[in-house]
Amino acid sequence: MSAVTTVPAEATDAERWARAAWSRWAESDDLRVRKLVETLGPVDAAELVRAGDPSVPETVRARAERADVDHDLDAAARAGIRVVCPGDVDWPGGLDDLALIPYCLWVRGPLDLAGVARRSVSLVGARASTRYGETLASDLGAGLAGHGFTVVSGAAYGIDGAAHRGALAVDGPTVAVLAGGLDRPYPVAHSRLIGAIAESGALVAEVPAGAAPTRPRFLLRNRIIAAISTGTVVVEAGLRSGSLHTAGIAESLGRPVGVVPGPVTSMVSAGCHQAAREGKAVIVTDVEEVVDLVGEYGLDAATRKRGPVQPHDDLGPVETQVYALVPVRRAASAADIAVAAGLAPSAVLAALPRLELRGLVRRADGAWQKVPAPRRR
Amino acid sequence: MSAVTTVPAEATDAERWARAAWSRWAESDDLRVRKLVETLGPVDAAELVRAGDPSVPETVRARAERADVDHDLDAAARAGIRVVCPGDVDWPGGLDDLALIPYCLWVRGPLDLAGVARRSVSLVGARASTRYGETLASDLGAGLAGHGFTVVSGAAYGIDGAAHRGALAVDGPTVAVLAGGLDRPYPVAHSRLIGAIAESGALVAEVPAGAAPTRPRFLLRNRIIAAISTGTVVVEAGLRSGSLHTAGIAESLGRPVGVVPGPVTSMVSAGCHQAAREGKAVIVTDVEEVVDLVGEYGLDAATRKRGPVQPHDDLGPVETQVYALVPVRRAASAADIAVAAGLAPSAVLAALPRLELRGLVRRADGAWQKVPAPRRR
Repeated sequence: MSAVTTVPAEATDAERWARAAWSRWAESDDLRVRKLVETLGPVDAAELVRAGDPSVPETVRARAERADVDHDLDAAARAGIRVVCPGDVDWPGGLDDLALIPYCLWVRGPLDLAGVARRSVSLVGARASTRYGETLASDLGAGLAGHGFTVVSGAAYGIDGAAHRGALAVDGPTVAVLAGGLDRPYPVAHSRLIGAIAESGALVAEVPAGAAPTRPRFLLRNRIIAAISTGTVVVEAGLRSGSLHTAGIAESLGRPVGVVPGPVTSMVSAGCHQAAREGKAVIVTDVEEVVDLVGEYGLDAATRKRGPVQPHDDLGPVETQVYALVPVRRAASAADIAVAAGLAPSAVLAALPRLELRGLVRRADGAWQKVPAPRRR
Repeated sequence: MSAVTTVPAEATDAERWARAAWSRWAESDDLRVRKLVETLGPVDAAELVRAGDPSVPETVRARAERADVDHDLDAAARAGIRVVCPGDVDWPGGLDDLALIPYCLWVRGPLDLAGVARRSVSLVGARASTRYGETLASDLGAGLAGHGFTVVSGAAYGIDGAAHRGALAVDGPTVAVLAGGLDRPYPVAHSRLIGAIAESGALVAEVPAGAAPTRPRFLLRNRIIAAISTGTVVVEAGLRSGSLHTAGIAESLGRPVGVVPGPVTSMVSAGCHQAAREGKAVIVTDVEEVVDLVGEYGLDAATRKRGPVQPHDDLGPVETQVYALVPVRRAASAADIAVAAGLAPSAVLAALPRLELRGLVRRADGAWQKVPAPRRR
């Protein structure tokens, strides 16, 4: 909790206390409160609350009466939770793109969050996912970690959990952004997973310990997932999926958004397909394409996928036409081939030796025959 | 084969003879021959050939020596094959968009080809298709036929065959464009399918009877599939698929192109995904989206897919927040809900009766509780 004095913009202890207090006293989308805090600054605005000033919104006064910020901070410190504020070296710069910048982040785990914004991917998706989606989320999580990307997600059932696990499986960095307080791992059945993320990566919440993961807080949490990372990929999503909400925020922030396609018969791929159809997201089918989507241009560009190379791939149009008409089971004269191809005999006579040179055709008693594929060299 | 004299632009018997001859004497991409025919017109150019004029390309003379056009036309007429020429009422107008307009079409079957260009979809795809792709191709074929669209394809193994069969299964119109002569159904194993298409729909080729389905002719055939229809949909395609070639031609002609997504683990969906990634095609996942892609605007526009409607779907932001914080297992006071929501009690007191009116919450001893979903009405 000590202020790092070498970085001038680092939050002071007073500001850190005040921001922690605001995260307790108000929801981050309460615009009246935001206006007060932005006008006076968090420290002076907090002074008004402590002085019982009547200009403080009633809801803040009610919450402030019940809250004990010093206790919050002490308990957090004991639990290994730090408060990261805008301007801190550990503050993820991507959050500054948000209209509703969190008052602070409550963070647990060794990972330096400042690096996250530079090279990370949010992998999100349906809770009611399929084995197909979970396998892909896990493979993408592992593959992105292998490319030096931090995997960000929301620790939910289904795709989120698979994405974290994929990164953890290769000892890769992963960040879980929770909707409730860090003392309330949610879902409870993911407590061990969330604990493992805290061990090697980072848990992040904008609400203090004790805060319940309510539906509005899930929606607010999504904006942090979208803004904290370089880009967002939706692995599976139904038509009304929360992960499409996250993708929509990422898109509105100018972050690249990818969707993984799947069978059109799968309802949890329908949201992905719809986002692609509506031009809100790009299709990504493997880790290279995700890296291409979010990576730094040039450094990470994916090579275009190609089918297997054929020996006659780079033939010119005349050679292609001649080659197609050289028989394989018997030999044909150049004149016959010319008639069949509708080409001048001179053109056919010029093309055949070039095909012979490539080992594609051979001469037999003055006639020509294809060399069968297995015998070529 | 009689000229329809009531339509002035209808091909004359002489022109029909000459165009049939040119389809025998030259491949449609032989540019020297095209120039000759376009300069003199098909009839006068054919006269040069018959007169043995030395300006006629050698390949044409060689083919003309071996060909018997009168026999071709007689045999075609006996086989129920007609020659359709540019300007004929039965000529599919879409072909006029091509750089290489066919000299003529050899057509068998009762379907009026002129209607095809107005309301048809080419459904094409991999020969080595999966059960997934074949089921979709068949369903799309049937569904499009049900919407009054003609299904165009290439009669090949896999997706093509499934698309034709889907249309035939609902007695829908379907057109097969063949690469070789109509007397040589290819692939041979599809002879019965091709025969069934000729019974109720149409078989089309730009080459006369006896012409072999060579590789260059398959590539030329693809341009007819792309141009003859209103739009093209690729159901499954590998990265080097011929159906992507067809889609590319359709795109270059300004026709709408759709691709059906599939599992990213399927190599025969990889070409579809790549086309979508590269912006060459739009994702389509069901018949309504295909109709939306190729249909007439307004008449056929697909409704946007939606998930199941929830009773709290259209709540305002305050109601949503309040609703989320009303407990379901016990009742809470409006004041407690206001504190939890970070809202003014007055706002909460206004929202609760509106939620009650929708049957979402109920009053119990002055406190508020959620109505569980199954009991709502």
